[in-house]
Amino acid sequence: MHKHMALIGFVQAQNCSNYPGSWRHPLARQDFLTADYYQHIGKTLERGKFQLLFFDDRLALPDIYGADHSASIENGVRVVKMDPIPILATIGAVTSRIGLGGTLSTSYFEPFHVARQFSTLDHMTGGRAAWNVVTSLNDSEALNMGRAMPIAHDRRYDRADEFMDVVLGHWRAWDSDALVINRTTGQFADSSKVRRLEHHGKYFESHGTFTVPQTPQTHPVIIQAGQSGRGREFAVRWGELIFAIFPNLEFGKSAYQQMHDEAKAQNRDPNSLRIAPLIYPIVGQSKAEARDKAALIERLAKPIDALALLSEVLNFDFSRKNMDEAFTDAELADFGGLLAIRDRVVKLSGKKNPTVADFIEYSARGTIKEAPNFIGTAADIADGLEQWFRERACDGFVIGASHIPGTYEDFVTFVVPELQRRGLFHQDYAGPSLRENLGFSGYRSAATVRADT
Amino acid sequence: MHKHMALIGFVQAQNCSNYPGSWRHPLARQDFLTADYYQHIGKTLERGKFQLLFFDDRLALPDIYGADHSASIENGVRVVKMDPIPILATIGAVTSRIGLGGTLSTSYFEPFHVARQFSTLDHMTGGRAAWNVVTSLNDSEALNMGRAMPIAHDRRYDRADEFMDVVLGHWRAWDSDALVINRTTGQFADSSKVRRLEHHGKYFESHGTFTVPQTPQTHPVIIQAGQSGRGREFAVRWGELIFAIFPNLEFGKSAYQQMHDEAKAQNRDPNSLRIAPLIYPIVGQSKAEARDKAALIERLAKPIDALALLSEVLNFDFSRKNMDEAFTDAELADFGGLLAIRDRVVKLSGKKNPTVADFIEYSARGTIKEAPNFIGTAADIADGLEQWFRERACDGFVIGASHIPGTYEDFVTFVVPELQRRGLFHQDYAGPSLRENLGFSGYRSAATVRADT
Repeated sequence: MHKHMALIGFVQAQNCSNYPGSWRHPLARQDFLTADYYQHIGKTLERGKFQLLFFDDRLALPDIYGADHSASIENGVRVVKMDPIPILATIGAVTSRIGLGGTLSTSYFEPFHVARQFSTLDHMTGGRAAWNVVTSLNDSEALNMGRAMPIAHDRRYDRADEFMDVVLGHWRAWDSDALVINRTTGQFADSSKVRRLEHHGKYFESHGTFTVPQTPQTHPVIIQAGQSGRGREFAVRWGELIFAIFPNLEFGKSAYQQMHDEAKAQNRDPNSLRIAPLIYPIVGQSKAEARDKAALIERLAKPIDALALLSEVLNFDFSRKNMDEAFTDAELADFGGLLAIRDRVVKLSGKKNPTVADFIEYSARGTIKEAPNFIGTAADIADGLEQWFRERACDGFVIGASHIPGTYEDFVTFVVPELQRRGLFHQDYAGPSLRENLGFSGYRSAATVRADT
Repeated sequence: MHKHMALIGFVQAQNCSNYPGSWRHPLARQDFLTADYYQHIGKTLERGKFQLLFFDDRLALPDIYGADHSASIENGVRVVKMDPIPILATIGAVTSRIGLGGTLSTSYFEPFHVARQFSTLDHMTGGRAAWNVVTSLNDSEALNMGRAMPIAHDRRYDRADEFMDVVLGHWRAWDSDALVINRTTGQFADSSKVRRLEHHGKYFESHGTFTVPQTPQTHPVIIQAGQSGRGREFAVRWGELIFAIFPNLEFGKSAYQQMHDEAKAQNRDPNSLRIAPLIYPIVGQSKAEARDKAALIERLAKPIDALALLSEVLNFDFSRKNMDEAFTDAELADFGGLLAIRDRVVKLSGKKNPTVADFIEYSARGTIKEAPNFIGTAADIADGLEQWFRERACDGFVIGASHIPGTYEDFVTFVVPELQRRGLFHQDYAGPSLRENLGFSGYRSAATVRADT
């Protein structure tokens, strides 16, 4: 068990946080196209000793609902999506300890490109880079990226497994002591310590010698978020930090245990994983103030938010069905995208064939109820996090913002000191690399273990 | 004619500058894997009011010579190649005026990705991004990127033309006044001012709505370097800044005139182009000191540098031929890569079928003689640049470094003030955007002109 919890900021290179209503908050900053907006988030979280901030991403805006982008654009439903890589580097230049993670899809890029972007980011940040590995999920992304349709769910993961083999192959190309740099002899590097990759696989070909020497933390930390069957297997195989959505404590304890069981089944030490679910904390000087803040935040959500985002993430146009119409077995089986959301709705509604209204209610997509809310004083929130951590529902938390930068400023100012006082959170960073700040120094990375077995 | 010349730093995300011997220089910094190394270059050039620094790139290290990477790695022949995008953002965060350009290939990425990375960089830098459009050229790059061989030269350019259409399509998706951001009405953007791209072409499909609002300079500045027939046509069609290698003044004047003629043939105002050839300046307090510096620098080159880099850039293993063996017509016709180098060797040697030795001598690849050397006092160098500029061989210069950061520090400290004193170079930046600092404010971009015609 990890002694301290990990705290992670969940950031979007967007006009809003993961909560689409966040841009409508009276205190939300609107300069989301500037460096200062993102640098302020990074500096705030670093002041709070957060181990990591990471950027979600998707390669299209939500335009599946009604087969049109207009409603999403008019209402600002996560329509701006910039590339995370330049933004991470922009934050890295004005911070020195916080980890910097970005999402990059295995579906539409070559492994060489992904390996090189994150290796470079790891060098530029002195060992603070993390890659959130995703498989792209919907038609909108496929159409932007020159394909007619996305890859089917399970096959996406087979392909992603091979993608990881290639990326790790590149990251292992240069031994840590390959560079010589001797001007007298003229020897730059020891070529016996640099290996050419010869990958001939089912989905990928990659033949050549990687062009970036080994990075400060050997390789960037790997984040993964798979929760459904095949996805969980993938997550536990490759992930070091597992990002999850657990609707409640009991769900979390069960899912946490399942992941540890999966790790043991894969012959992996479960402590080489950090499992961190998304939460929305809303802190006030009193319980009443916090409840008032929460009420304001909840009112920012619009019905279109849920419909646009459910259509996006399940790759199904929800405008095709009436509110009380049940999904057929065939429709449920045909969903693409994040199947964990479908499975959650079936489980929480207790219905084999939920309706559109059930999906809105039980997924809570587009609202802050999608993830657990911790609302109250700093002590109240610390109580809740302590319970989740001690009862082994998680090894840390991904902090979602109901508005930017207010959520992070409040959390860092009020909740972090309380967690530190209780000995639940580190007083300061252990060192410059993300890997050591996540407490992985004593463990071999999953990728290394896999390479040997 | 442009009133002031443009000055551009030519940077590599590598262990060396474009001159492979540069890492062997006694004053060369060796911390090329750190942010500070690149930030120092950016800050130095910004102190000297350079309009732009731009990063070259290639998606493989030189491993065609002898079909092996060992010699390149042992000798440090441009073997480290990091991704330019995170490095540009890292520099952008500590500078405020200098333009930041990066190379990204049209051969192995989707246009959506390229458009989004540069749009994001343009936002993060407040309007200072530039994209150097290249077509990938050799087998090593193809093999790293999952292909068996590169695309043939002329077809590469047809494909690149279509690639530009798609990228510009994305960049034009959001009108400058599309964002509304009204919390009272809840309107985020005016959807009538955001257009979906429906591109169905010979080489590319792209269907969707771009996810990044219009950038500070409308779109990033476009850099291009094509010099051979089909390449020049492409460069003049799309380029705003044309990067060139002119071996001498007469060659430059003729090539400059050819590009202006090509612009007129394409119905484009030649003043909407900036043509800037690569040069190596070596400055001393006296002529003698400069000559001594130059002698030291020239001694840093090794024979392997030329052979590895010629094999790389022409996609032909030079170890297959003896030094005095002439290339056959068929071999010359089969060369891939930068055909401008082949054409230059044929022209300068006066031989229809040059030998390996001719290629080494007349291309001067891997040495500082590849581009004109300006060696002397600051006044001597200013004299030379003034002549090239006034006699219309160029609109500015791309400054190659014989070592890092010495070349840039010397140039900024000694040569820039002399150019400013003569009225050849601006005293300060005209504004925050690269486009205005290149003097393009009065011109419509080539891309815009093309869209209308």
